[in-house]
Amino acid sequence: MRKISVIGIGAGNPEHMTIQAINALNRADVLLIPLKGDEKAFLADARRDICARFLTNPACRILDYAVPVRNADGVYEDGVRDWHQAIAAIYERTLLNDLGEDETLGLLVWGDPMLYDSTLRIVDHVRAAGHVAFEMEVIPGITSVQALCAGHGIALNRIGLPVEITTGRRLAEGWPAATRDALVMLDGVQAFKTVQDPDAEIWWGAYLGTPHEILLSGRLADMAETIAQTRSRARAEHGWIMDTYLIRRPAADAEEDAA
Amino acid sequence: MRKISVIGIGAGNPEHMTIQAINALNRADVLLIPLKGDEKAFLADARRDICARFLTNPACRILDYAVPVRNADGVYEDGVRDWHQAIAAIYERTLLNDLGEDETLGLLVWGDPMLYDSTLRIVDHVRAAGHVAFEMEVIPGITSVQALCAGHGIALNRIGLPVEITTGRRLAEGWPAATRDALVMLDGVQAFKTVQDPDAEIWWGAYLGTPHEILLSGRLADMAETIAQTRSRARAEHGWIMDTYLIRRPAADAEEDAA
Repeated sequence: MRKISVIGIGAGNPEHMTIQAINALNRADVLLIPLKGDEKAFLADARRDICARFLTNPACRILDYAVPVRNADGVYEDGVRDWHQAIAAIYERTLLNDLGEDETLGLLVWGDPMLYDSTLRIVDHVRAAGHVAFEMEVIPGITSVQALCAGHGIALNRIGLPVEITTGRRLAEGWPAATRDALVMLDGVQAFKTVQDPDAEIWWGAYLGTPHEILLSGRLADMAETIAQTRSRARAEHGWIMDTYLIRRPAADAEEDAA
Repeated sequence: MRKISVIGIGAGNPEHMTIQAINALNRADVLLIPLKGDEKAFLADARRDICARFLTNPACRILDYAVPVRNADGVYEDGVRDWHQAIAAIYERTLLNDLGEDETLGLLVWGDPMLYDSTLRIVDHVRAAGHVAFEMEVIPGITSVQALCAGHGIALNRIGLPVEITTGRRLAEGWPAATRDALVMLDGVQAFKTVQDPDAEIWWGAYLGTPHEILLSGRLADMAETIAQTRSRARAEHGWIMDTYLIRRPAADAEEDAA
């Protein structure tokens, strides 16, 4: 049976590649590489670097495809669904036209396919369409969350306390009710500015795992403006930015007692 | 200056090792390996396997130490603090007695040092004591959370929705207020049994990343007893168990609208 191997390739540092991911890369008969879309030139270069360093199987065919453009008009969810369906159709055509019956299609995913990535959902669309049978394997990869914590030398969680992984959009709607520790991804709105706790601390990072990595940390009230300015300057310089951060608020007495 | 390299070695599969971790392993002048403590024989074997496969630096000295026993009497937090201090004293002695001034001490950590692991806090104790100066680097590793999601072929989060990472003890106190998705670690009390939502789903895994890996999933109400029995049987067979799971409850209407 055909197989799709969804391979996490880490957060931007080629050395985030695991042995498992390198072996999966080299078991693939075809690697399908997105050409443009939201893929920035830097990330495309890093992906090429990964193939150049770790792909040793000379029989592997590398195919690329132009990423469909997402329709930003109309209902957001509809636009996302249509966009996923369009990519699913490309995966399906590749499986049917470019792979033999026992061959494997490799898809390279930034970070880990489990975390704020749509590849697994797109593969679900291919499965649901039912035009081609295939198995799937998933190879985990280092996420930007892990690169953030490693860069700052901190733990994600406090002893016995929970942590919420959330998005900038969610955080902008209000602090999560159940936790005092929030790891925020996909923040296009700089939602950290909405957190007013004078005792909150932040650990922020951009371009994590890459040579452009920037790390800032401190009391949120002191650092918010510095982070906003650094973010804006770096974005102008590089033409893009990917950042993530942890905000930790002092545990309320009741919570400390419970911990 | 002396250096401590805290190296995440993955969730149990030696192939979880990243290139970055392998390189850090081989840059270490001394590797300090715990001999007993809560380290199970299986994990000790897997760690030896990692050194045998990936350590190619013949000058690296491997030292082992007997892990102090944690005092379970008295206040829990005091017992943990004393235990961490005792391990910190071992790290400190190793830095002072077994490392040259520009040498590096490598500490191998299961999973990722950022997630429910105490190594970084123990290193903080060494730093706070102030008897020896050192730098620290942290190398991320694949966690059991990632091995769970990869094994089940699922994403940790739903599109745009948050997820809480928490402990069994916390879950047993009640479902987190802000999320409908909870990833539960360190559950010695089988807290999944306390979740009564008839529409909740569970993805459970034990011995993740190892040859003994067990994966079960389905409607929580249907699976809870099967998981409890499987867990109990596996624990009796192997003498230990490490498991983790994701529970997902249907998003409330209000939350779906907001997503």
